[in-house]
Amino acid sequence: MVELKLARYVEHARAEILERLDAWLRIPAISADPAHANDVRASAEWCAAEMCTIGLEHVQLLETAGHPSVYADWLHAPGGPTVLVYGHHDVQPVDPLSEWISPPFEPTIRDGQLFARGAVDDKGQVLYHLEVIRALLAQDGRLPVNVKLLVEGEEEVGSPHFEALLAEYRELLYADVLVVSDTAMWSEAVPSMCTGMRGLVAFDVSLRTASGDLHSGSFGGAVRNAAHVAGDLVAALHDANGGVTLPGFYDAVLPMPDAVRDSIASLPFDADTFRATANGAAPTGEAGYSTLERIWVRPTAEVTGIAAGYAGDGIKTIVPAHASLKITFRLVPDQDPATVAAAFHHWLDAHVPDGVDATVTPEGGVAPALTPVDHPAVAATARVIERVWGVAPRFTREGGSGPEEALGRVLDAPVVFLGVGLPDDQIHAPNERIVLEQFWKGIVAVGELWFELAAVGGSIPRSVPVEGEQ
Amino acid sequence: MVELKLARYVEHARAEILERLDAWLRIPAISADPAHANDVRASAEWCAAEMCTIGLEHVQLLETAGHPSVYADWLHAPGGPTVLVYGHHDVQPVDPLSEWISPPFEPTIRDGQLFARGAVDDKGQVLYHLEVIRALLAQDGRLPVNVKLLVEGEEEVGSPHFEALLAEYRELLYADVLVVSDTAMWSEAVPSMCTGMRGLVAFDVSLRTASGDLHSGSFGGAVRNAAHVAGDLVAALHDANGGVTLPGFYDAVLPMPDAVRDSIASLPFDADTFRATANGAAPTGEAGYSTLERIWVRPTAEVTGIAAGYAGDGIKTIVPAHASLKITFRLVPDQDPATVAAAFHHWLDAHVPDGVDATVTPEGGVAPALTPVDHPAVAATARVIERVWGVAPRFTREGGSGPEEALGRVLDAPVVFLGVGLPDDQIHAPNERIVLEQFWKGIVAVGELWFELAAVGGSIPRSVPVEGEQ
Repeated sequence: MVELKLARYVEHARAEILERLDAWLRIPAISADPAHANDVRASAEWCAAEMCTIGLEHVQLLETAGHPSVYADWLHAPGGPTVLVYGHHDVQPVDPLSEWISPPFEPTIRDGQLFARGAVDDKGQVLYHLEVIRALLAQDGRLPVNVKLLVEGEEEVGSPHFEALLAEYRELLYADVLVVSDTAMWSEAVPSMCTGMRGLVAFDVSLRTASGDLHSGSFGGAVRNAAHVAGDLVAALHDANGGVTLPGFYDAVLPMPDAVRDSIASLPFDADTFRATANGAAPTGEAGYSTLERIWVRPTAEVTGIAAGYAGDGIKTIVPAHASLKITFRLVPDQDPATVAAAFHHWLDAHVPDGVDATVTPEGGVAPALTPVDHPAVAATARVIERVWGVAPRFTREGGSGPEEALGRVLDAPVVFLGVGLPDDQIHAPNERIVLEQFWKGIVAVGELWFELAAVGGSIPRSVPVEGEQ
Repeated sequence: MVELKLARYVEHARAEILERLDAWLRIPAISADPAHANDVRASAEWCAAEMCTIGLEHVQLLETAGHPSVYADWLHAPGGPTVLVYGHHDVQPVDPLSEWISPPFEPTIRDGQLFARGAVDDKGQVLYHLEVIRALLAQDGRLPVNVKLLVEGEEEVGSPHFEALLAEYRELLYADVLVVSDTAMWSEAVPSMCTGMRGLVAFDVSLRTASGDLHSGSFGGAVRNAAHVAGDLVAALHDANGGVTLPGFYDAVLPMPDAVRDSIASLPFDADTFRATANGAAPTGEAGYSTLERIWVRPTAEVTGIAAGYAGDGIKTIVPAHASLKITFRLVPDQDPATVAAAFHHWLDAHVPDGVDATVTPEGGVAPALTPVDHPAVAATARVIERVWGVAPRFTREGGSGPEEALGRVLDAPVVFLGVGLPDDQIHAPNERIVLEQFWKGIVAVGELWFELAAVGGSIPRSVPVEGEQ
């Protein structure tokens, strides 16, 4: 077996690398919760300090109207390509806290896995890039390519200020290829590369039927009940076939080519394994599609939260005056977030009954993303994965959403997904983890990738053909 | 105008009476919340101490498997009738706390109204009985009738142990007539007497679709979502005409006689006033019935709480693994709580989809209650109301539910409702109040009632004919 360039570094530096990961993961950078705003900033500052320490330059927080991103670069490979690495340092909320086996911000290793909020989504995946830079600069005094890093602070809340940030710093962020490390592989034994992600639009819907709760005996049965309005809306969101009922929702969705259907069908999908990974949840969804198709190539509507009336112990005999619904739509090519948002507003207008004051707060949106499998940067990444994992990668997609679409569009460069997560990493749920063997391979793979891209050199096409399906 | 017996007492003792009410209302006796169990006990002990002070005898806490009731009596009117007064000392929860103008357990007087949780439901209405006993025993050294008081501690959670308590203390509680003070009048200008109440069965439904929340990108659209299950159940509870969909739900409901429809139609109901009282909620409900009919003579299903997924600030991109529904059914003669509970369980079995673990916790039940308007004790109470308010009372019903049905059935005695609440007292909601003028009239009316019932004497029929409608 060929000696991989970073293998020796990983072998000798494991303990100190884990210390650095531990320190970063202890910062509860929950971007969704205003009470944690200072922690998100502290996380950005930790990242910036680490970047300075390892020899990166132009280290800076890029301020936004929300939480800050972090930028740094090393640009001393004249004539070589410039790679922009994207990741994020903010994390998801942690409730229900009681379901965590070890506290979310006290990283704990069990059975070769490191458990903590943000372990794989996404601090761990940013850190393996930093470790490669640390090792190469310490060992060689140089990197084979020009590297820029952009580590966002609002990915988990839908990147509301990211596109504005990209536009403002377009020149600073100029690159030939964009490497995103925020995705998962099929399994440790079946490595894979994501080639596309679903988009997302999200809404917080507030429904008020009265200025205050009413006694359910004195008024029940005769006045509008906010919990009933909420339930009716949730039920009306899907038809009997599991389809989304927003008028025009599927108009822009490109039909799935046979090649994509065949490629998905060829993967070693096991229904029992999937159900175990899905915390035992029963499979269901849009009629006429397989589980992977439902997640990768079909758009969806998910109610992510309902709150109405009394939620404490026992019973409170009220007619609730207020309800809150949190609804997200996952989008696929060529759905447009703004068009779907408009369709949702129209749908809501048509479905909210008289006497209900409905307020909709948009919670950010990202378009779906796809990169062609035959792009030279994708091919280079595939070669690296085969070298490190010993198997040629499958091409998959992610059902999740990210700011990669804006990244590729605004910076006008191809997006490559190199991610070492695994399907049962419990991202966004209690007991998030990173499998350490995948983490170490991430360091080795990134090291290989810089040399591969240096070899590809000037032949990286800047523009990605717009295509709905590949 | 005739000098009413307690008028002078009220005139001179207002300040000290309000001090006593204030002290009791400061005890947060929230029976629904286990964290307040000690407060419910403290409330019972306050009541017992007050009973001792004013000269009642056999004062005792009647322990149950839940919160204690309080008992006391004065039985030195040989040959006179024995009256059992029923009320309760526990109160509703107070959330949303932010909507209270003054804190719920810091009684505050504004514009002739005393605002506090429990002001009218029901501590204030128990206290005016105690004040009458205090005044008469101090002034005359005796009462015109034998009086027993039973002050429950679990009325706001559906009286789960009340029937067992009645059975255990049946001899102690023996009485000729039961006076319940826990209801409201039509208005200050149109005094009224409740003659019946709706029954209640309540359920806490827990729905689990997976062992933990899932990422809505990685799993959304392909697995069961607990929030969707909850929404579908809420929507399925009513048909397009606002009827309840439980099979057999209306089977035992007696048709509404024309006389009842006419009596209800004759009341000075004003839609705008009702809507203002209902905190602005829009009227809606079962097709073919008026607002008052929907509240007084028709059974209903109300969802009083929904909790699923993420309820914090911003968006959490999850597929919720758990949802909770709180559902109450209001019952009318001759619906039976056990039959409706069985129908709900069957309905739920039929509507919960595969892959959902549904757990139902019954939260107590009471049957509907009715007392004939021509009963001598009802007639005596009506005379008293006319004397104190200056107008003959209308006969109404309450949409709310109480343990009065068990009271009348187990103790085999007629139930008379003397209540001074008003429709916009905000019981069970923020800013509960008692109108002080109604409170003072309550003291005067109870004083009159004891002498009226003494005059009726032995002619009070013990058994109430069972009738579905009057």
